[in-house]
Amino acid sequence: MKMYELGVVYRNITRADRVSADALGPLGAATVHEAMGRVGLMQPYMHPIFAGAQVSGTAVTVLLHPGDNWMMHVVAEQIQPGDIVVAAVSAKCSDGYFGDLLATSFKARGARALVIDAGVRDVKTLAEMQFPVWSKAISAKGTVKATLGSVNIPVVCAGMIVHPGDVIVADDDGVVCVPCALAAKTLEAARAREANEAAKREKLASGVLGLDMYQMREPLAKAGLKYID
Amino acid sequence: MKMYELGVVYRNITRADRVSADALGPLGAATVHEAMGRVGLMQPYMHPIFAGAQVSGTAVTVLLHPGDNWMMHVVAEQIQPGDIVVAAVSAKCSDGYFGDLLATSFKARGARALVIDAGVRDVKTLAEMQFPVWSKAISAKGTVKATLGSVNIPVVCAGMIVHPGDVIVADDDGVVCVPCALAAKTLEAARAREANEAAKREKLASGVLGLDMYQMREPLAKAGLKYID
Amino acid sequence: MKMYELGVVYRNITRADRVSADALGPLGAATVHEAMGRVGLMQPYMHPIFAGAQVSGTAVTVLLHPGDNWMMHVVAEQIQPGDIVVAAVSAKCSDGYFGDLLATSFKARGARALVIDAGVRDVKTLAEMQFPVWSKAISAKGTVKATLGSVNIPVVCAGMIVHPGDVIVADDDGVVCVPCALAAKTLEAARAREANEAAKREKLASGVLGLDMYQMREPLAKAGLKYID
Amino acid sequence: MKMYELGVVYRNITRADRVSADALGPLGAATVHEAMGRVGLMQPYMHPIFAGAQVSGTAVTVLLHPGDNWMMHVVAEQIQPGDIVVAAVSAKCSDGYFGDLLATSFKARGARALVIDAGVRDVKTLAEMQFPVWSKAISAKGTVKATLGSVNIPVVCAGMIVHPGDVIVADDDGVVCVPCALAAKTLEAARAREANEAAKREKLASGVLGLDMYQMREPLAKAGLKYID
Amino acid sequence: MKMYELGVVYRNITRADRVSADALGPLGAATVHEAMGRVGLMQPYMHPIFAGAQVSGTAVTVLLHPGDNWMMHVVAEQIQPGDIVVAAVSAKCSDGYFGDLLATSFKARGARALVIDAGVRDVKTLAEMQFPVWSKAISAKGTVKATLGSVNIPVVCAGMIVHPGDVIVADDDGVVCVPCALAAKTLEAARAREANEAAKREKLASGVLGLDMYQMREPLAKAGLKYID
Amino acid sequence: MKMYELGVVYRNITRADRVSADALGPLGAATVHEAMGRVGLMQPYMHPIFAGAQVSGTAVTVLLHPGDNWMMHVVAEQIQPGDIVVAAVSAKCSDGYFGDLLATSFKARGARALVIDAGVRDVKTLAEMQFPVWSKAISAKGTVKATLGSVNIPVVCAGMIVHPGDVIVADDDGVVCVPCALAAKTLEAARAREANEAAKREKLASGVLGLDMYQMREPLAKAGLKYID
Repeated sequence: MKMYELGVVYRNITRADRVSADALGPLGAATVHEAMGRVGLMQPYMHPIFAGAQVSGTAVTVLLHPGDNWMMHVVAEQIQPGDIVVAAVSAKCSDGYFGDLLATSFKARGARALVIDAGVRDVKTLAEMQFPVWSKAISAKGTVKATLGSVNIPVVCAGMIVHPGDVIVADDDGVVCVPCALAAKTLEAARAREANEAAKREKLASGVLGLDMYQMREPLAKAGLKYID
Repeated sequence: MKMYELGVVYRNITRADRVSADALGPLGAATVHEAMGRVGLMQPYMHPIFAGAQVSGTAVTVLLHPGDNWMMHVVAEQIQPGDIVVAAVSAKCSDGYFGDLLATSFKARGARALVIDAGVRDVKTLAEMQFPVWSKAISAKGTVKATLGSVNIPVVCAGMIVHPGDVIVADDDGVVCVPCALAAKTLEAARAREANEAAKREKLASGVLGLDMYQMREPLAKAGLKYID
Repeated sequence: MKMYELGVVYRNITRADRVSADALGPLGAATVHEAMGRVGLMQPYMHPIFAGAQVSGTAVTVLLHPGDNWMMHVVAEQIQPGDIVVAAVSAKCSDGYFGDLLATSFKARGARALVIDAGVRDVKTLAEMQFPVWSKAISAKGTVKATLGSVNIPVVCAGMIVHPGDVIVADDDGVVCVPCALAAKTLEAARAREANEAAKREKLASGVLGLDMYQMREPLAKAGLKYID
Repeated sequence: MKMYELGVVYRNITRADRVSADALGPLGAATVHEAMGRVGLMQPYMHPIFAGAQVSGTAVTVLLHPGDNWMMHVVAEQIQPGDIVVAAVSAKCSDGYFGDLLATSFKARGARALVIDAGVRDVKTLAEMQFPVWSKAISAKGTVKATLGSVNIPVVCAGMIVHPGDVIVADDDGVVCVPCALAAKTLEAARAREANEAAKREKLASGVLGLDMYQMREPLAKAGLKYID
Repeated sequence: MKMYELGVVYRNITRADRVSADALGPLGAATVHEAMGRVGLMQPYMHPIFAGAQVSGTAVTVLLHPGDNWMMHVVAEQIQPGDIVVAAVSAKCSDGYFGDLLATSFKARGARALVIDAGVRDVKTLAEMQFPVWSKAISAKGTVKATLGSVNIPVVCAGMIVHPGDVIVADDDGVVCVPCALAAKTLEAARAREANEAAKREKLASGVLGLDMYQMREPLAKAGLKYID
Repeated sequence: MKMYELGVVYRNITRADRVSADALGPLGAATVHEAMGRVGLMQPYMHPIFAGAQVSGTAVTVLLHPGDNWMMHVVAEQIQPGDIVVAAVSAKCSDGYFGDLLATSFKARGARALVIDAGVRDVKTLAEMQFPVWSKAISAKGTVKATLGSVNIPVVCAGMIVHPGDVIVADDDGVVCVPCALAAKTLEAARAREANEAAKREKLASGVLGLDMYQMREPLAKAGLKYID
């Protein structure tokens, strides 16, 4: 399973454990990204096609070529319930690789979402179907079916490396990739992070300042901050 | 009627036949673009200012200059019911050429929408009026009224040539221009394309794969695709 | 109070008069920008994180460094009811400087909105809280707390200079900055502008053309416009 | 010969008269663009791959698809001495469609330059060969040979419509397209424009101001310009 | 002299002292920017039209409108020997506001360079004249002369506020603005910075590491850096 | 050695064999990229800071944070003669991370070049030193030294995954990464590719068409290409 293999489909991949993969979603992209040590986030040009979706799942990956969506049909067969398809392209392209027919197929196979570093179309129907997609563009531009890519090799999607089986967490704030081996540990860290957020929120809502709650006044003064009246 | 004429208004243009112009809209930009042989689509940076609008109509065109919307008032007079105004600018500009007053006027003349390779403003009011606009930008920046452009000459809008009278089809997926002479034929092809989509969707929803439905397994194997367990 | 001071917090700033600061909001960014003589508008890449918000208020400013949101906690303390925080960064950055916890704090201090030439996160929660933000990006990317910027010095935000105390007007069309000293005069001009819009709208809705209403036919003819049948 | 035909090669095109096509080059893109009435210029993202080239010639056009340079070989056969190849792509693409081998072939056929709304490669060798190219990008990314486009149909290249036979004028300032029918008239206007530039330059070099030379002081005062000491 | 005044020309401005204005240039943009405390740099999209130019001078400023270079002739008269013209536009525009004729005039008045947040043309001739320009774009697109801006008001150019009389330092690394009042102090700091660079360079050239020369090993270890064999 | 480790420096990495690493450079980025099967190319926004450089070497990698170049000093110590430093940033940033002092140090350690998905400065001096750099931007903006990244972990640089020890090939056409394990095989394929280029070039120079040399006429006809007189 190598970055540079073309024309291959890996059928057996090791998926992250289901419990972590499912539990990371509700924590959200920002919290998970922080719990990872502030890494793993795709470029912020990845946008949800409709607001409010929040999902997590295990990655099945596909490498496409510009203007060619042939491999989207190949990857469909490798989807298992709980998966999220992560699609990369070998060069920048904003064409519409994915529409309502493929979404119907992906959904029937149990896919929870698509993350694609390219364009999609039929977005009104996709929103009606409530099939979440994070993409770089929306474009009616169709694609051909002529060139082989690969399925379930490591890919670089929107600036982030994704291995098949990694956990994908996506919401309105963006898309994070949690490597398989770090899923459990990241879940724990993310939960710890979230645990004391409610208390903090209450304090801040009552007017307590972050300056005091986080004890920042001293380090700020040490760094040389001056107040002028 | 030439690309390079400035300071002219063509009053008599040949509009595509009304039946085709009206019937193409409900088929949507993606289907129409495919029916054209995958040409005719404007650049995907053209966005609707509110989601869900889907229209078609005959183009009246206007060529503007950067930061100058004088000709928007000139084109208003040439609008007939069922038209869509297509506005190009002689150099890139994101200023707000169009707001609620012009929209009121366009609407009163029977315009169905505006497609503009520049910016618009008053978008909250435009959404309330349900007057659809596809634009490159939203910007409060006002414009002057100082320089002559032209009305109903061929223009290049968002990378696509549009002749007055062509059919414009626009929805959340983008904006397609169908040349006058191809309108009827494109309608036929688009309808044929749509006719068997329902059956396909049902099959895919039942779990049948595109690989089998489109008989792709053999050509993929021929192209050298390898499955690895 | 100088552009180039780092590590300072000005506690006493002169805010624009409250009446003007409050009354400019309902007039909207486009009208206020026109009333200013078509200046004062930030770059159109500034987008609201949810549609429909329309606010005005007095600016408290903060200068941040790339990937560092430490000063956001410092500025929080300087917020007074009716203020809008305007955040600039010393170099381009799209990281998520602001989320629901800071929003809770800003709201508790009386802030009406945030305008930031960078990214924000937790946008779903921010929308639920109805705390309006205009930003350059949405990004889950977290920031560190390591470097001093300044609070309440003049800043350049999205291409526009903002002094502390200036009036900020923001809606779906963009963000305008009205200098403190021009607030009352701008309010007057904006109201005058709006006063006759209703009458114009009615005329245009009845089919009267801008060509006639604004008496453009003569200047257009003088400029050489030709009609061709 | 239509915009929307795919899979066709027009062998007989009407080229602009040779005298005009050759004489426009030395006048330069800026002067020719002005002589056209400030139209005809391609987007300024089109850059020469080496500085200092200045050419004109008659356009042979080719429509390509993203990531596919098959038609570049087809267009090579249609080149006549004095032609410039103008290549458009049916969707945005920065791949390297053209390198030293194709340049050798184009040169052997008599092509003077390539203008391509996509990427090229082997730019060091192209510079050594002194074969001028204006392109959107430089990229080592290779292309496939799988899909038919067309040769010598009208194309939109970098925002400008180009018909086969039109005159292309290109230098460090950009690329201008002069329609066949306007070539002679544009040449005349461009020469007139240039004729009095030497005199103007001398005056300005001696310290005379444009304000006086162009008699702008009165119109500026009329427009309301105020000098403050 | 206010940001928001239109239609005015300030004839008397306070220029930074000549010694500082002249001495900052040879120190270069990077050193001067560091000496300022890492502020004052324009956006890095500002490029020199030819490599190798390195200048400094006192700013005369001009505010232009999109596609309109009328005020370039007005600003020419305000140039004094040793000045650099800084041109801002009230909205984004890449048109060619400046060519060889204006450069001849500017040079005759003693201008050392132009810094413009828009486009220029005739760049081959400008390079032959060795008149340095930093701009956002190169474009043959001409402009009209129709609308008043202002001369010698504060402007925002490429993200940086510039007051008339400030010192501009520009080279291949970018453009820095040093406020009038900080010129002498910045010169001193920049010289101090440069003084020990030669010694550092020699050490590094001999193989001494920055880790040791700057004594970074301890703070890195404290921050938790781990070496793994 | 994992993508997501922060604060670590791997001192022992397996470099690609020296013969392949050295021999790939003269073949150039385009040929090597083709020999890889058209993969491995970084995004085309990566530009050389001066034209004509052509190098290859073994990658030492460094992960930086926005606006922070501390780790550049850490990576310097890990450089061995024949290495190329590949620098990635955890979020988009165009600041100037690298100038003539670091270049002096890198050169003294034996580095052949720097490839950085961010900005650099002192480019005039770097060109005089003939130290090649491929970067996303040129910017005088300085950086701080505050946050730990890592050295010699896999990084994503300009859209391409790079492992320490991989071969980097860079020239005016762009930057290619050849995985360690594929270096020898890629060298062989690239040489084979180049072997018959001279013969092809000669044929094309004599006027033979690619259509005939590559026997494209039949497949084009089969695909439906039509010639029209």
